[in-house]
Amino acid sequence: MKLKLFVDRLSQPCRAILIFCKMNEIEFEEVRIELSKGEQLSPEFKEINPMQKVPAVKVDERFRLFESHAILRFLAGAFPGVADHWYPADLFKRGEIDSVLDWHHANLRHGSAGLVFHSKLARLSGRPLDLRAAADCEKVLSASLAKIESVWLKEEGQFLLGNSKPSIADLSLVCETMQLEALDEKVRKRLLDPHEKVRKWMDDTRNATQPYFDEIHGVLFQVKDKLKEMESDE
Amino acid sequence: MKLKLFVDRLSQPCRAILIFCKMNEIEFEEVRIELSKGEQLSPEFKEINPMQKVPAVKVDERFRLFESHAILRFLAGAFPGVADHWYPADLFKRGEIDSVLDWHHANLRHGSAGLVFHSKLARLSGRPLDLRAAADCEKVLSASLAKIESVWLKEEGQFLLGNSKPSIADLSLVCETMQLEALDEKVRKRLLDPHEKVRKWMDDTRNATQPYFDEIHGVLFQVKDKLKEMESDE
Repeated sequence: MKLKLFVDRLSQPCRAILIFCKMNEIEFEEVRIELSKGEQLSPEFKEINPMQKVPAVKVDERFRLFESHAILRFLAGAFPGVADHWYPADLFKRGEIDSVLDWHHANLRHGSAGLVFHSKLARLSGRPLDLRAAADCEKVLSASLAKIESVWLKEEGQFLLGNSKPSIADLSLVCETMQLEALDEKVRKRLLDPHEKVRKWMDDTRNATQPYFDEIHGVLFQVKDKLKEMESDE
Repeated sequence: MKLKLFVDRLSQPCRAILIFCKMNEIEFEEVRIELSKGEQLSPEFKEINPMQKVPAVKVDERFRLFESHAILRFLAGAFPGVADHWYPADLFKRGEIDSVLDWHHANLRHGSAGLVFHSKLARLSGRPLDLRAAADCEKVLSASLAKIESVWLKEEGQFLLGNSKPSIADLSLVCETMQLEALDEKVRKRLLDPHEKVRKWMDDTRNATQPYFDEIHGVLFQVKDKLKEMESDE
């Protein structure tokens, strides 16, 4: 199968898919869609994803799919050689991973993506910051990190649900928490410092997916520097 | 397998699961958790779902699962005799249904559940209405209904993605749009009138899942009457 990934590495769900493909030796062509330039709004890209968001994929020039969790589930099933721990065939184990993935949307994702966008990334595309919306999102994010610490991470096992190997849920959620790198260091520390298990899990997931994890996250650190420059120019 | 469903029929994802089980002759025990009385916050229920939300399920007194889409996927796979159209085994068809289910969270679900709660249902548990939050959610809801009309519903096929039979995505999304019954009639009409295909799809999904659809939605109409009474008493 010929796979095209339409992605921006500044988008956390895009990074999860890129790391997943590299870890599992799935060959792909990376088509960059720059969100800060609004490239996702072009008529050409609307043909790929009518919702005008990244990530999106095209398989053999005929099948299109979007929504990162749907893509991860699809890739895990459609490409041979993906180890079972990423998205287990066992219905009970799979159900639990689906439960984390579904919980993610209205919780960690909503809080983290909203906070980072409204308090930082909006600048990159020339849009105004919205500190009221950012504060609302920060509350959701704090509550979500506490739930990961107390519910999803267990005493046994390094990964979510007490698993000994990472699943697509670990990848998706850790790429999301990595987005907090774009925040001011003191805000990021305030959010993450109370959650020792979360920090260890982020490290463990990073270590389990090297060297790709650092390679794919490189652009995030560049943007962090760029945001700092923009702020010091004000 | 012995299945217990912890539900409140006023919750749209709970209704989707109840209708799914009845349509597929899956036997279950219904345990009512009344949200308006805060029963989801009890220590006993926290043992079932640490996130303290409905729906949740217990299988054979040992396996617990929450998040409605994860539950629907699990039930479709774990119980024999569920027709393939609900959640197809074919990875391409399944991927598209997953895409709708994942899209739902931050779009139709976020908009509809937020609007109905902040402008109406908060009253039932004695909480204040929040009309600013309701207005934000209404914008998300309007955009989501427009996307269902223009992207997810096709010329061919009565159901989402152009399918000729309903999937778990149709059930989940239609139960969500049914929640708009709790709104004032003129608001509901303003939201749904521009979307002829959406209204037809709601009717088609209802007709394809009778008599259970009406049976399970009965309580919603009772609440609609109760809300009207509360408002006329003011």
